Amino acid sequence: MKARIAVLAGDGVGREIVPEAVKVLKAVAVRYGHTFEFQSADVGGHAIDKVGVPLPAETLTIAKHSDAVLLGAVGGPKWEGLEYSLRPERALLGLREQLGLYANLRPAKLYPMLADASTLRREVIEGIDMLVIRELTGGIYFGKPKGIEKLPGGGERGVNTEVYTTEEIRRIAVVAFEAARKRRKKVMSVDKANVLESSELWRRVVTEVQKDYADVALSHIYVDNCAMQLVRNPRQFDVLLCNNIFGDILSDEAAMLTGSIGMLPSASIGAKVGLFEPIHGSAPDIAGKNIANPIATIASAAMMLSYAFQLDKEAAAIDQAIVKTLELGYRTKDIHAEGMRLVGTTEMGDAILQNL
Amino acid sequence: MKARIAVLAGDGVGREIVPEAVKVLKAVAVRYGHTFEFQSADVGGHAIDKVGVPLPAETLTIAKHSDAVLLGAVGGPKWEGLEYSLRPERALLGLREQLGLYANLRPAKLYPMLADASTLRREVIEGIDMLVIRELTGGIYFGKPKGIEKLPGGGERGVNTEVYTTEEIRRIAVVAFEAARKRRKKVMSVDKANVLESSELWRRVVTEVQKDYADVALSHIYVDNCAMQLVRNPRQFDVLLCNNIFGDILSDEAAMLTGSIGMLPSASIGAKVGLFEPIHGSAPDIAGKNIANPIATIASAAMMLSYAFQLDKEAAAIDQAIVKTLELGYRTKDIHAEGMRLVGTTEMGDAILQNL
Ligand SMILES: CC(C)[C@H](C(=O)O)[C@@H](O)C(=O)O
Ligand SMILES: CC(C)[C@H](C(=O)O)[C@@H](O)C(=O)O
Repeated sequence: MKARIAVLAGDGVGREIVPEAVKVLKAVAVRYGHTFEFQSADVGGHAIDKVGVPLPAETLTIAKHSDAVLLGAVGGPKWEGLEYSLRPERALLGLREQLGLYANLRPAKLYPMLADASTLRREVIEGIDMLVIRELTGGIYFGKPKGIEKLPGGGERGVNTEVYTTEEIRRIAVVAFEAARKRRKKVMSVDKANVLESSELWRRVVTEVQKDYADVALSHIYVDNCAMQLVRNPRQFDVLLCNNIFGDILSDEAAMLTGSIGMLPSASIGAKVGLFEPIHGSAPDIAGKNIANPIATIASAAMMLSYAFQLDKEAAAIDQAIVKTLELGYRTKDIHAEGMRLVGTTEMGDAILQNL
Repeated sequence: MKARIAVLAGDGVGREIVPEAVKVLKAVAVRYGHTFEFQSADVGGHAIDKVGVPLPAETLTIAKHSDAVLLGAVGGPKWEGLEYSLRPERALLGLREQLGLYANLRPAKLYPMLADASTLRREVIEGIDMLVIRELTGGIYFGKPKGIEKLPGGGERGVNTEVYTTEEIRRIAVVAFEAARKRRKKVMSVDKANVLESSELWRRVVTEVQKDYADVALSHIYVDNCAMQLVRNPRQFDVLLCNNIFGDILSDEAAMLTGSIGMLPSASIGAKVGLFEPIHGSAPDIAGKNIANPIATIASAAMMLSYAFQLDKEAAAIDQAIVKTLELGYRTKDIHAEGMRLVGTTEMGDAILQNL
């Protein structure tokens, strides 16, 4: 097949890990007879430095006309003094909105050879394999009214609005049930229906959608209890369906359970073009030193092959190459342990290539 | 001193653990020469069964005219079929609002002899001692507009509003800084200022309030990162300041890190009358069997003595009695381990009394 891939390396370690993923994608193209065209564009702090905004129109155009977007990470101390509305992170929100990426898929899976990196006991986390599905273009992230207003009597008032429509809930629930069908057939839906009306509707619609998926078991859990259960017994989860803000919080908690967030990929899908990126940030403290772990980004490239191009065999080949490389003892600094072979960013990329 | 204590046992294990705490309070009164008058009232499912509402006017009156409220827990499967607005949990929201309980204090402290009950490795959790301070009468829990409305084109729309004023943020920040002064002098404030304007105001006001507390260090953390850091390195936290919904989620996560939520108390304060309750729920599955752990409730009674009545010596005596009882090997089922002495609810209460 032929595909156009927009490459948005962004800031910090993004500039080092994205090239490794591109390297792997190129090798896959050669091996399996595909043609991938790569087109780079600026995003985040780099775009601010060049043209003054985190998401330039040109970048958006390139993304929109691509078949998939590979993103590194955005942000860094250099841009933290800016007003919130101009900061690098806004590029992410802009891309999500403009590309209609309403479904964010974040697998949290334990690589068994890395179990010791987790702060949780081995017996609690062994076998963790969950998929957090987060609604990504609705809820309190985008709801209106929002803003800060002066109060007549002095002082101010900050407002955001959590809002979900039947249709927004329905489409993300469908993504969750479809994903569960290919997995262990269990969806747990997170809400705060005992307090929030928006959650009451969420629970009602998800329950309704389940009727089309009789083979998938559905349960509901309050968000506070879910934050507890993730720590208490993370193995109980298969697909975890969340709204935007609950998914933001719980997917990060879930990721940390595995102990190695440098390993975890994500996919954001919805309309036509999907976006694929590691869940970790730009890690400015270790940027430019060839020590960042490229695996999360390489695994994100694998998700791209599977979700955007239905190249499941090729995606599996990448995932297997990652596992094999880890089995051979290759480790970047963040996952290093005694007796293992410490390598840099590019060497890890090379090793995965070799094991492809 | 003389004090009137409203006793709201509520549902499930609430009916067994609250009497144990009352027993301990009575012993403290005798020992230290105080007069505590106890007045019981119905709340939650029990109130629904008797008078059809979870928070009867009479109960509210008794609470309002008391010097402090001791609460057990509310809820259970019997009342889950009811409309959300009539369920037992609504009594909690009503009490918070009506008593002006804007500050919820939830210590998450590890009892060293129970470290093995945690799913986290011992070396990660040893020495955890944090205090989550959650805003309790504002934010998305109470903000308007809220509700579910029909959309003209079909379907519905669920709405809740996250709203905070300068004054609401200021007063909860003051509680956090005052508390930090008596502890390790570190406040970490949780928000999502990179996305939410309500959080932007939150961060701004908390930063402003800190100027009156030059001896206390303030840092800010995004809620998603905080959910991660609690798992990664929980010992870094001293006082964690949160809005209502973030505090709901993170305090439960923090509690679970200790491995024994049957041990953790809470205080809700604000206007005149404070409310003290265990952080765990009504645990209907184990109710009525004399196996529930009364320690969280007894520790809540200790918080009452300290926060409502400034009886710090008496509060410390209860806390020490709890530790001593644990050291002697007494364990309820939830915290039982080999070689320990398994006891029931009343026996645990008796043992703590004896060690007072
Ligand atoms: C950077 C921020 C806007 C973003 C979010 O809150 O969605 C990030 O935390 C994420 O999860 O991708
Ligand atoms: C029962 C529920 C309304 C309540 C809340 O969300 O505040 C509970 O979770 C708590 O934390 O006390």
